[in-house]
Amino acid sequence: MKRRSRASAGNRAAVARLRKLGELVYEQIERGEYPIVRIPDRSVGNIIYDEKLGQYILGPKRFVRTTKNVKHLRAFAQLMWLAYFSKLLSSSHKTSTLRDVFYSAQAYNVEFEDQDESDERITELEALLGMAREEFNVYPEERSSIFGRLTIEYNIPGYEGRKLDLTSHPDGVMIGPALTTADFVETDAEMVIAIEKGGLFTRFIEEKVHDRFKAVLINTAGQAPRATRYLLRRLRNELNLPVYVLTDGDPWGMHIAMVIISGSANAAHLTQLNVPDASWIGVWATDITKYKLPFDKLTDVDIKRLRELSSDPRYSGDPWSSQIDAFLKHRRKSEQEAFAKYGLTYIVDKYLPDKLGR
Amino acid sequence: MKRRSRASAGNRAAVARLRKLGELVYEQIERGEYPIVRIPDRSVGNIIYDEKLGQYILGPKRFVRTTKNVKHLRAFAQLMWLAYFSKLLSSSHKTSTLRDVFYSAQAYNVEFEDQDESDERITELEALLGMAREEFNVYPEERSSIFGRLTIEYNIPGYEGRKLDLTSHPDGVMIGPALTTADFVETDAEMVIAIEKGGLFTRFIEEKVHDRFKAVLINTAGQAPRATRYLLRRLRNELNLPVYVLTDGDPWGMHIAMVIISGSANAAHLTQLNVPDASWIGVWATDITKYKLPFDKLTDVDIKRLRELSSDPRYSGDPWSSQIDAFLKHRRKSEQEAFAKYGLTYIVDKYLPDKLGR
Repeated sequence: MKRRSRASAGNRAAVARLRKLGELVYEQIERGEYPIVRIPDRSVGNIIYDEKLGQYILGPKRFVRTTKNVKHLRAFAQLMWLAYFSKLLSSSHKTSTLRDVFYSAQAYNVEFEDQDESDERITELEALLGMAREEFNVYPEERSSIFGRLTIEYNIPGYEGRKLDLTSHPDGVMIGPALTTADFVETDAEMVIAIEKGGLFTRFIEEKVHDRFKAVLINTAGQAPRATRYLLRRLRNELNLPVYVLTDGDPWGMHIAMVIISGSANAAHLTQLNVPDASWIGVWATDITKYKLPFDKLTDVDIKRLRELSSDPRYSGDPWSSQIDAFLKHRRKSEQEAFAKYGLTYIVDKYLPDKLGR
Repeated sequence: MKRRSRASAGNRAAVARLRKLGELVYEQIERGEYPIVRIPDRSVGNIIYDEKLGQYILGPKRFVRTTKNVKHLRAFAQLMWLAYFSKLLSSSHKTSTLRDVFYSAQAYNVEFEDQDESDERITELEALLGMAREEFNVYPEERSSIFGRLTIEYNIPGYEGRKLDLTSHPDGVMIGPALTTADFVETDAEMVIAIEKGGLFTRFIEEKVHDRFKAVLINTAGQAPRATRYLLRRLRNELNLPVYVLTDGDPWGMHIAMVIISGSANAAHLTQLNVPDASWIGVWATDITKYKLPFDKLTDVDIKRLRELSSDPRYSGDPWSSQIDAFLKHRRKSEQEAFAKYGLTYIVDKYLPDKLGR
């Protein structure tokens, strides 16, 4: 039985960095200067692929937003308000959605044209602080869920010290702010399996995959939200558990696995949201023929997507490039549910042990 | 403190009705007759609005599917296989998705052209048995979640007798097969509040709406899935709790509330999925002006939808028809999040007490 703990430093670290940002601006004003901020440049020209990390990162370029330029004033003020509001959220242990932030600005007479504008400014704040917005308490809507052999201990107000065994509720529990910031206090799990779809997640629980494979199961519900990717990284790093990703056998499923492994180009300013050594265990293009799965023909959109992926440096190694070739050769795609052709438990009794080498 | 219990009769009742269906067919064969089934007719001409129930129901028409007619044979065989497979699921306490059912047929060499065909046959089986498919263990993917002052006791294999306090996990727990079939064993809740969006659900938990209003909170995550509507009905009937529904202030939000209250025309063959005396507490068209909420202009699609709703008999009473008029007059819509203009807690501190008359 392992036992690990993690101080929930997230909020404190965010408050410290936000305070530092404020000090920087104050200092400039006190020196009689027009305050400026230097924001990491997220434009395509500054996104580079880091082979060692196996992910996209930002290069060294920064752009200067200065209050000397009247055209910058609006965005500068918006950014300062966002930093203020984020500090308020973090220090009062409240969370907010992107949409809430957009409307909250109106309480302060801070203008955003639309939510795209407030989202963009939040992303700049992420880049400036080097922190995901979840760390300063701006969360997406919950969508993913978790079940398995792990006990957590909460850090949110009113729940400090309370624990939950993640096998307590056999439909799974939501991955929201409380779960994301909880400590991992006890587990005998030997792996994490992230699953693209709720139907299969439920099947895995019914067939006791968590017991048979000593596993923590995560339903990503499609493309894994960032809070879920952050949680997967914590499970990997703090508990030293291998992470396996099981998706539909098509370019979209393949990319769900890739984003868990190497992050997304959109979030190249953040390097804490991926699990570089996670494994995509299927459904592979070669599994579709090997297991004689029911399939649909690839559409033109699927094929276009495969060609895009094949020019992405993250897809140059194995199994990626050979699976892209196999998809293009056979022109077939299969869903996870296709294994039901062999009975509802076949995927658990046969396919999963095959892929995990057990 | 109330205490109610409910025998988890669902599966046993389903198995009994499926067995009865099988007996009916066998008896016909033994009498030397071509077996037939009489399936309630779900076509528009047989859907009638029941003013007393406040919902759409099917009229008395049935159509005969007979093995005497070679054109009926395929559908008849499909229906029999589905009944067999549903009995297998129900008696072995396994669940399945619609998609899984489609693929499972291939294990038995039963042909379905596509999933639309297997879905249609499942709906026929619902109509024939007078039971929602969830009762014979065919579930949708999980999407909704629950949190609040209620302790449940599970009835699924491996969890019999285990309990969960639904305040155990402050991100909420998923509403899946285990929760839907659980008994309600202890509660001091005085109401249920169903919320359209996850962001506000999280806000309500953070602001302790469950304690301040002694409430059970449900995140419907958009249009409430049928399992969630069934759960709402159980909370209403077994615990005698009033149900309040809080949605965005637009025709789509209004209809989310209406479907919880009076069911959907699509499911006119089922009368166990609605809460006739639930209340839609907002966001009303008149709230948008009263609370001076940030708004967007109604689009042409919104207006078209409002005109459709105004010719629907379910929308003839209050607050429905007057709110449709108000939407059409002001041409404004507002989201739940729009209240953040007055601070993140305004909706809990002011709006909710206003609407609940507290």
